[in-house]
Amino acid sequence: MSVLQIGVIGAGQCSRETGLVAEAVGREIAHQGAILVCGGLGGVMESSSRGAQQAGGMTVGILPGFSSEDANPFITIPIVTGLSHARNVLVVRSSQALIAVEGGYGTLSEVAMALTLGKPVIGLHTWDVSGDIIMVATPEEAVQKAIHAINRAQ
Amino acid sequence: MSVLQIGVIGAGQCSRETGLVAEAVGREIAHQGAILVCGGLGGVMESSSRGAQQAGGMTVGILPGFSSEDANPFITIPIVTGLSHARNVLVVRSSQALIAVEGGYGTLSEVAMALTLGKPVIGLHTWDVSGDIIMVATPEEAVQKAIHAINRAQ
Amino acid sequence: MSVLQIGVIGAGQCSRETGLVAEAVGREIAHQGAILVCGGLGGVMESSSRGAQQAGGMTVGILPGFSSEDANPFITIPIVTGLSHARNVLVVRSSQALIAVEGGYGTLSEVAMALTLGKPVIGLHTWDVSGDIIMVATPEEAVQKAIHAINRAQ
Amino acid sequence: MSVLQIGVIGAGQCSRETGLVAEAVGREIAHQGAILVCGGLGGVMESSSRGAQQAGGMTVGILPGFSSEDANPFITIPIVTGLSHARNVLVVRSSQALIAVEGGYGTLSEVAMALTLGKPVIGLHTWDVSGDIIMVATPEEAVQKAIHAINRAQ
Repeated sequence: MSVLQIGVIGAGQCSRETGLVAEAVGREIAHQGAILVCGGLGGVMESSSRGAQQAGGMTVGILPGFSSEDANPFITIPIVTGLSHARNVLVVRSSQALIAVEGGYGTLSEVAMALTLGKPVIGLHTWDVSGDIIMVATPEEAVQKAIHAINRAQ
Repeated sequence: MSVLQIGVIGAGQCSRETGLVAEAVGREIAHQGAILVCGGLGGVMESSSRGAQQAGGMTVGILPGFSSEDANPFITIPIVTGLSHARNVLVVRSSQALIAVEGGYGTLSEVAMALTLGKPVIGLHTWDVSGDIIMVATPEEAVQKAIHAINRAQ
Repeated sequence: MSVLQIGVIGAGQCSRETGLVAEAVGREIAHQGAILVCGGLGGVMESSSRGAQQAGGMTVGILPGFSSEDANPFITIPIVTGLSHARNVLVVRSSQALIAVEGGYGTLSEVAMALTLGKPVIGLHTWDVSGDIIMVATPEEAVQKAIHAINRAQ
Repeated sequence: MSVLQIGVIGAGQCSRETGLVAEAVGREIAHQGAILVCGGLGGVMESSSRGAQQAGGMTVGILPGFSSEDANPFITIPIVTGLSHARNVLVVRSSQALIAVEGGYGTLSEVAMALTLGKPVIGLHTWDVSGDIIMVATPEEAVQKAIHAINRAQ
């Protein structure tokens, strides 16, 4: 993988404030020349995709359902799985690091799967369930730490 | 589903003490006439399967790999998925309630997936990450609460 | 796997005549002491499950959807996957041999997947696309050839 | 999906002649401004990806294994699934039409899955198992027919 792929995980519905954080994460991923990987739907997924696309970046949406039309409007490449929640594992595997923005049980499941698979997890106001999650305070720091963790792992 | 299916989740390797707890959980599931569903491998999965089978119960092992020979010796029905960690979602979906016995990140991922899908989760010395997890102190109480939660949901 | 698991594949809707053939296949699988594995829904899956259960056998239904209630009434163990058509691969992997009864494109897909994975395929009035499919004329012969092929492979 | 995604399926190992056909298919997909989707490995997948990338196109490789490094060198976006053969369904679902270039049982399985899901299938020297497969003689014709079928379906 020559180009970095960074995953963004979070709830499918979110507050305006959380959406702005997610958008800034996506924008910073694009600025760093990385590809944003997410679940392709709304909320944090849509806001981060918007940020990335508006900054000229590319976005991959790994969709749970049966149609590419489920993708939010800021997805460059829709991957249609039909696997429902089992697609979460693919979001984790297809990312070299993951940034969790808040999130509910679904996000916790992805965070735990990422830790299971040994992927770096950066947390922004998210589940504080393990010292292995790198907690940060800003979107810029999140992306910076993600790239740092990827480079250190190689 | 006429017969109850109760999932047991936990680490693939465990201490002797944890194994005894898991075995008692499996035994109690069989005594209650339910089928035990698990990931089919070692540790908590194997101990609970042993307990169930020795008490005359039936066990289903939803395996991550490519061969039924990966199953521990106490699995009645091996389901071979070849899906690796994505098979965790199937353990959750195929159970009407889940009992988590300790466990690491993999177990946390399954606990969170169960909560995402609205399945009752009973915890024995496991991740205390949500008030939605019904924490109990003994294997018998775990199975009792699981059956109670299933009946209440119907 | 101490007990043989034999898969039965075919369309989710079928004629009365085809249903009788599928039922006889299921009955013979049970008579031979093997477990019947199928996709858990209607048509050939339901008829073969009925035959097996009425002959005292056990049946496993690997369901594409989200609820065990999707299973036909003759399924002993429902496996709920939520994977839609991707569950076909699990039917193949969880069977030591497969018997195809007629069938459309979905069945052809499973036949081809079974051949890809090196599983014996027995055909009853089904897709004649390869010399590797063992074509037979009767349900009894189908189960006999399946068991013979499994034993030879071990 | 604003940009067309066209799948190319075929064996993981192929003759030099078949490779040249696949390469021309990939090149034509890129010339038409579509994204090439494939299984990401060698043979027909690699040759078609090479053709697409050298013509300035984008390629998506939906990998069966656990590492993006399994991808052939001409994959722009590796999707890491860990699902083994079950990933074939994702190649089909993520494509609006599929072009089959020769191929063995694995390809037949994907062709049948595509027909099951109602996707147009264009065949180049491939399994002639159904009148629903649009058989063509040249790579250019294959891509032309694929785009025509997609447009007609919308």
